[in-house]
Amino acid sequence: MPPEYQVKTAPASADYNEIVPKAKDLEVRLQRTEQQLRLFQKVSRFMVRDMTLQEVLQGIVAMVVEFTECDSCLVYLCDREHLVLCASNTPHESQIGRVRLKLNEGLTGWVARERRLLAISREAYKDPRFKYFGELPEDSYESFLSAPVIARNRVVGVINVQYRQAHQHSGGEMELLTTLGEQVGCALALARIEPQLLETINHAELVLSSFVPAGPAPAARSRA
Amino acid sequence: MPPEYQVKTAPASADYNEIVPKAKDLEVRLQRTEQQLRLFQKVSRFMVRDMTLQEVLQGIVAMVVEFTECDSCLVYLCDREHLVLCASNTPHESQIGRVRLKLNEGLTGWVARERRLLAISREAYKDPRFKYFGELPEDSYESFLSAPVIARNRVVGVINVQYRQAHQHSGGEMELLTTLGEQVGCALALARIEPQLLETINHAELVLSSFVPAGPAPAARSRA
Repeated sequence: MPPEYQVKTAPASADYNEIVPKAKDLEVRLQRTEQQLRLFQKVSRFMVRDMTLQEVLQGIVAMVVEFTECDSCLVYLCDREHLVLCASNTPHESQIGRVRLKLNEGLTGWVARERRLLAISREAYKDPRFKYFGELPEDSYESFLSAPVIARNRVVGVINVQYRQAHQHSGGEMELLTTLGEQVGCALALARIEPQLLETINHAELVLSSFVPAGPAPAARSRA
Repeated sequence: MPPEYQVKTAPASADYNEIVPKAKDLEVRLQRTEQQLRLFQKVSRFMVRDMTLQEVLQGIVAMVVEFTECDSCLVYLCDREHLVLCASNTPHESQIGRVRLKLNEGLTGWVARERRLLAISREAYKDPRFKYFGELPEDSYESFLSAPVIARNRVVGVINVQYRQAHQHSGGEMELLTTLGEQVGCALALARIEPQLLETINHAELVLSSFVPAGPAPAARSRA
């Protein structure tokens, strides 16, 4: 047990004044970490439920907004050379499916192209990569956090979190969005598989075909 | 700020003796929660890396063992009416692909059939659902925790955590295994998709085809 936790019956007030704020800080951090853990568990639960892909995306967007308290969360998915707006927390219903960006346009296009997380805490619209489209109010927002949506090592979309005002993105928020980009990629892959097919295919075989007990790797490997 | 955190310069020793163990407890819980969060992030990262399905399963097994400190972690996957051992932390290499259970056999079969988490803290071998196979030393282990592997709402396998000695499974361990069952299902789905296909398909279209702005649901919905 570290010395600062040893129970004393007559503590020096200096010790006490150190430990009390520490306990408070620990409690806040624990609460936040538990919240993030529950969010991942909820997202994972989406993977097994009988939901449309649109419902999964909207569900993820709603949870991101709750956790980050952002003003906007948008999901764009690839249609070959374009990124198409597919989910949003704001009432952009008329824009869903209509807002289209090229892969070489704007901050969102940069994230897809470079396959990198992008975090801008203020004046995102002054970034040299920014492009004004004028189709969404988010174009004027100060703060921008964006992660690629990835499936099998390929970028298949982008997920954005935006704040009207300047906002310092925490490590937890960056980590969250990175992971959600991967989970949305999983949801897209799952949607490609017919549920009936899952009952007839031999899952074990696919794994074992790539199993290498001790010798050299075979020429062709099933990669996941 | 709750009263117990107010900084006092002359505390009663009773206050102090309450707060110090509380800080210690908070620190332990925070550490454990952060550990679990990192585990999920690592598993999610597997979904985007160019790994064989066997490597993904073995990686997940290794992380489960590290987190739970269990003696054995086994993954069985469905081959129609059978469950086939596909990954293990113990040197069961000669058994991988050879140990086969029927869906109506043993504790593992019960989990697949009932699609439910099963937690037994001691004398798992005395459970009426237990079946002795004698192929694996795990048959004699005291404690058993098992979750179904699920993809698109279908059971496609089972993941087991076992201890030689009696072990009270924590809520965190149960939650972890449930989520990992879902994530293994995602990995199986991803492995079914050719990476090249991901660059040519229209991901946006699949989502938007199920998008219902305001009216009634269409007859056919793409479900994820």
